Amino acid sequence: MENRNHLRLLYILLTAFLLFFLTRSWLQFLPYIPSDKSSLLLPSSPSSCSHSTTTTTTKPPPLDHQSDVPHHPLDPLTLSEINLARSILLSHFPSSTPFAVHTLVLLEPDKPIVQSWLPNHPLPPRLASAIVRLHGSSHLLTIDLGSRRVTRDEVANAASKSGYPMMTIEDMTTSTWAPLSDPKFNSTILRRGVRLSDLACLPISSGWFGRQEEEQRRLIKVQCYSSEGTANFYMRPIEGLTVLLDMDTMEVVEISDKGADVPIPKPDGTDYRYEAQKANRDPVRGLPLKPISIEQPKGPSFEIIDGYQIRWANWEMHVKPDARAGVLVSRAAVTDPETGLRREVMYKGYASELFVPYMDPTDAWYFKTYMDAGEYGFGLNAMSLDPLNDCPRNARYIDAVFAAADGRPYVRPGMACVFERYAGDIGWRHAESPITGLGILEVRPKVTLVVRMAASVANYDYIVDWEFQTDGLIRIKVGLSGILMVKGTPYKNLTQVPNNEEMYGTLLSENVIGVIHDHYITFRLDMDVDGADNSFVKVHLSKQETAPGESPRKSYLKATREVAKTEKDGQVKLKLYEPSEFHIVNPSKKTRVGNPVGYKVVPAGTAASILDSADPPQVRGAFTNNQIWVTPYNRSEEWAGGLFSYQSKGEDTLAVWSERNRPIENKDIVVWYTLGFHHIPCQEDYPIMPTVSSSFDLKPVNFFESNPILRAAPNSENDLPVCTAAASA
Amino acid sequence: MENRNHLRLLYILLTAFLLFFLTRSWLQFLPYIPSDKSSLLLPSSPSSCSHSTTTTTTKPPPLDHQSDVPHHPLDPLTLSEINLARSILLSHFPSSTPFAVHTLVLLEPDKPIVQSWLPNHPLPPRLASAIVRLHGSSHLLTIDLGSRRVTRDEVANAASKSGYPMMTIEDMTTSTWAPLSDPKFNSTILRRGVRLSDLACLPISSGWFGRQEEEQRRLIKVQCYSSEGTANFYMRPIEGLTVLLDMDTMEVVEISDKGADVPIPKPDGTDYRYEAQKANRDPVRGLPLKPISIEQPKGPSFEIIDGYQIRWANWEMHVKPDARAGVLVSRAAVTDPETGLRREVMYKGYASELFVPYMDPTDAWYFKTYMDAGEYGFGLNAMSLDPLNDCPRNARYIDAVFAAADGRPYVRPGMACVFERYAGDIGWRHAESPITGLGILEVRPKVTLVVRMAASVANYDYIVDWEFQTDGLIRIKVGLSGILMVKGTPYKNLTQVPNNEEMYGTLLSENVIGVIHDHYITFRLDMDVDGADNSFVKVHLSKQETAPGESPRKSYLKATREVAKTEKDGQVKLKLYEPSEFHIVNPSKKTRVGNPVGYKVVPAGTAASILDSADPPQVRGAFTNNQIWVTPYNRSEEWAGGLFSYQSKGEDTLAVWSERNRPIENKDIVVWYTLGFHHIPCQEDYPIMPTVSSSFDLKPVNFFESNPILRAAPNSENDLPVCTAAASA
Repeated sequence: MENRNHLRLLYILLTAFLLFFLTRSWLQFLPYIPSDKSSLLLPSSPSSCSHSTTTTTTKPPPLDHQSDVPHHPLDPLTLSEINLARSILLSHFPSSTPFAVHTLVLLEPDKPIVQSWLPNHPLPPRLASAIVRLHGSSHLLTIDLGSRRVTRDEVANAASKSGYPMMTIEDMTTSTWAPLSDPKFNSTILRRGVRLSDLACLPISSGWFGRQEEEQRRLIKVQCYSSEGTANFYMRPIEGLTVLLDMDTMEVVEISDKGADVPIPKPDGTDYRYEAQKANRDPVRGLPLKPISIEQPKGPSFEIIDGYQIRWANWEMHVKPDARAGVLVSRAAVTDPETGLRREVMYKGYASELFVPYMDPTDAWYFKTYMDAGEYGFGLNAMSLDPLNDCPRNARYIDAVFAAADGRPYVRPGMACVFERYAGDIGWRHAESPITGLGILEVRPKVTLVVRMAASVANYDYIVDWEFQTDGLIRIKVGLSGILMVKGTPYKNLTQVPNNEEMYGTLLSENVIGVIHDHYITFRLDMDVDGADNSFVKVHLSKQETAPGESPRKSYLKATREVAKTEKDGQVKLKLYEPSEFHIVNPSKKTRVGNPVGYKVVPAGTAASILDSADPPQVRGAFTNNQIWVTPYNRSEEWAGGLFSYQSKGEDTLAVWSERNRPIENKDIVVWYTLGFHHIPCQEDYPIMPTVSSSFDLKPVNFFESNPILRAAPNSENDLPVCTAAASA
Repeated sequence: MENRNHLRLLYILLTAFLLFFLTRSWLQFLPYIPSDKSSLLLPSSPSSCSHSTTTTTTKPPPLDHQSDVPHHPLDPLTLSEINLARSILLSHFPSSTPFAVHTLVLLEPDKPIVQSWLPNHPLPPRLASAIVRLHGSSHLLTIDLGSRRVTRDEVANAASKSGYPMMTIEDMTTSTWAPLSDPKFNSTILRRGVRLSDLACLPISSGWFGRQEEEQRRLIKVQCYSSEGTANFYMRPIEGLTVLLDMDTMEVVEISDKGADVPIPKPDGTDYRYEAQKANRDPVRGLPLKPISIEQPKGPSFEIIDGYQIRWANWEMHVKPDARAGVLVSRAAVTDPETGLRREVMYKGYASELFVPYMDPTDAWYFKTYMDAGEYGFGLNAMSLDPLNDCPRNARYIDAVFAAADGRPYVRPGMACVFERYAGDIGWRHAESPITGLGILEVRPKVTLVVRMAASVANYDYIVDWEFQTDGLIRIKVGLSGILMVKGTPYKNLTQVPNNEEMYGTLLSENVIGVIHDHYITFRLDMDVDGADNSFVKVHLSKQETAPGESPRKSYLKATREVAKTEKDGQVKLKLYEPSEFHIVNPSKKTRVGNPVGYKVVPAGTAASILDSADPPQVRGAFTNNQIWVTPYNRSEEWAGGLFSYQSKGEDTLAVWSERNRPIENKDIVVWYTLGFHHIPCQEDYPIMPTVSSSFDLKPVNFFESNPILRAAPNSENDLPVCTAAASA
């Protein structure tokens, strides 16, 4: 068995090597393995197919990450710390054993240590947390960077728990090559009329469905596309062809080929790149848009201190790129306008897991039930942002420092951006109307601070914004753009589709179906409203009938407070006709008139998963069974789908933890909110989707004594910039 | 009876006259009766209590409305047309009869006439529609401005229907004075420790509750406040004192005084004006905000043609101020990127009615169930916007021309604004991740067009935005700001409140309760998607269980289309766990691959009214019983709460019309969407509320063949403005 695997691996490597030199287009598909030191330390120069060539002037020069040192207990591992951790790992493991680093991040100090740390004081000991695969096992390690020792090395899942760590980029890229080692696969591709040099394949997490042949091995499914004639190969599926691979051995386990009668859709009109548009199409219809920009000639009002600490207006927070979650926002605190004191709001918040089930139970589709953070790495796939387009001109950028599978560090320049946003919105206003004739007109513009990242998990792009308002509100917004995962079909027009034939989606173009799917993004919000111990209070609004003769009114709405005692009280399904507010209060802090200080979770548009709760994907994605959950703080409960969500059976999800029904009243609690989208594709989503967004808010509720932006100043013409058109515009 | 009324009126006028000269502060409360010609034609100069002194430079010089002529069949009545209509009315009615003009607007030509009109062709005949009160009756009139004749004069409610027209500003201002004619009222005020010179009163629509003594007369309730020590008198209620007035005779019908034990809350900290803030308080805490602005040195990309027609990017529309609805958006059409042809989307859209029930059944509060459009005039109370603060610097303004109660025209300068919005958002994007390593990064910034107005219906401010996106989406957003309607209470701290005592709201400050209330804004959307005849299709997403052995998946979501045949099929209550999309399709137009072209209504965060459906306010506000309604186009069904919603019994609401269950398939249909807010006040809302917003979208769904902004250009540094800080900044 071992020998056979080694032979297969050799064959894969040889094939890959040959293809690499035989075909030019394969150059595009080089796996992302940082190749030399300089590329690690400098921002990547714009690639030839990117349109941006002059935008680097808007970015400050990149930090010299080589000399980075941590300044804050939550600062991510530096380049040299990652190198140190790697060398400790190398000496920890037997020298001849190859291992793969799936996670290598700061092990954050305990909350009280972080909370008691004072600026410019020595940092608490720097520890790294690592998840490493070797000999087919997942090891959980703690590395003490001070003593240069591994202080914990546990084999995960030693007991009954299932699942594997987040894939490395190298897992993903290697998987896309591996099927080429199988002659049957290659001949299938050729039979479909696709040249191997036009082949583009994607690694698709295989989920878990209880199939015996998929137990006890780390698997991935590979599906392929033709990139002939378009950079948007996603629109050209080789439908029905699925290769099941063993990700540890790169062995082809199974090839399923059920779409030979489905043509590959044509490439025409699918390429979305500006160069392709300029070359192929008429000019844009309608009036041209003149240049428009958010301008701040005196510079931004925020400071980024020591790389990751942001101070802006009445807010301060720590922002850190993370390979799994994307961006972690920690220690968000607001200055009280009455006292000038810093007041904590949220210890840490981030996208803990995503769940993206597709709604097609057929062979090549049923398993598409992605968990984009725990399977792919939401941060790992958050690419450098495009200045002027991803973020406005006044943005500043934060680089990510991540570890590759070999443990070496690399820099993802400009992975997050920070900018002040003025959208012409109004912070507060009042005009006296003719009714009183007082002639008062007082209006305050709204300026906010946005922390943004954009993850490109293969086809889809997720834009995640943390927006801070001076009135204390935090808006967490997720935008969906990018490219649909589409299905090939023999049909070119709906008139050809037999009655009752299930399409599982929308015919978007000839031979292209956009398959229906959902998106869920579950945020973990470790709220510390004015201190760690908080309670979750549901404020129900319910109809009260008046007594006969009591009032000309028959009914009114009454607010009733229900303090959640245990986790089950904190499980919330939103109901339009049974409305509630959801407060996180500090029961030991009251306002002057006696209201408990709090923040509330304010849902906006969302969607709920209505899959069968016993369906394997829904068991694994059971953290979407409610829109809100509240758990007591537990250091090990970070990832809503489980630490090892890849191929997990769902034994370690938020839903399981919550079922223990622990007390949550007046405790250090964590609130989980799931933002959902149902997506029935439409033709406007083809060949690339206009952004769809939704959001929810964390909003002060009796947190301040009064409107904290009462004293804000209005805009004055005399203060605004003096601008002229660019010579070239 | 007549004589007594005349005596009372004389007394009122005398008292008012005396007060006017005796007290300085009454100057503030002058009713809004335009006093001379020049004030009608020029923008009002900034009042002394407004901070804006240098902002007029950002506005184009005001149109010379004296010489205005209509250019489009939907253009509002001009100054001279209103003058002409008034002179026709004067000769139509007996010369000695005083009358009050409640509505005087263009009677829009029939849809086909408007639709077939071509630019620069002669306009269809100009007709005015008027609602005039005389001799205690409401007359519905049509005035032919060409032939100078009244062609229709019907007395409304001649049959059984209830209700009165929208109040005039003069009704409202006169009502606030009228109680002073009653010695009992005056002595009550003095007993409460309020000087008459500090009195500020509000006219509060009395609703309809079936009380015998309130039948057959036009009534209003007046409640008062002390303005001593603050411009924010709303925070100083003289609790429990309600004066019921006959609005036609200004007779005091009833005084209810049940709050003598309730102190008037203190004025400290309530004044929100910038001058008051600067004088009374410490500087703002936190980092100061540096100037920030949306800049377009080459000017906006839109044109306002002949006052009311807007062309921008791929959009065109007609925008018209309206005294009742606020702003009417008509003939919204988008250019197809494939063909370059104009395609109609919406014939007309506007806020048809608002419903704002307060949740306190006690004597001084139960009747507060406002209909801000049909009772107060949503446009009538939409004041001049504050340049740089209500709208960004790059905005342009549209003046309103309205008729006063005497039929004379006046100009409300800058009642609406139009601006391009760039908020740093992303139109679409895709980055290729390390998975493929393709190195593609294509991002397009999102620029939108906003049409905004802000109505100040006494205390509350509503900001209504119509936002148009180049991808075809229309977002209708309502922001709530302004000042709470608060209730006095003896309590200064929650610890003083006996258990089980119902507060009906939140203790916001000492002696101040913010009473719970809802806001509903019902939009009438006359959709004409690619033509007048459309169908409403509910696309249900429902769980499908797979057959045993069919798939490793147990379930998936399936989309099923249900075409609404009649109005009852078009009544929709939103359900998170029974999700649907709501399409307005043109069944006779298909895309290339065969999808019916359509737009969908996309709800976001909203609230539903859960009052008892038999409660009189809910009967009158029954248009909020569903979130969506669909009716066949009917010229007379414009106002969701009825044409005469003031004091109506609810016989003429959308709910009543819809009950007829008329066919709506493949018809000219009107879609009604209600945006709702539950508002449990919190201390942050005191003494003035940070803006809370919600929205819904009209979004193309298979309307375009593909993404209509595929060809949009990215931003380029070379095109952006060159800005320097202002010398004074």
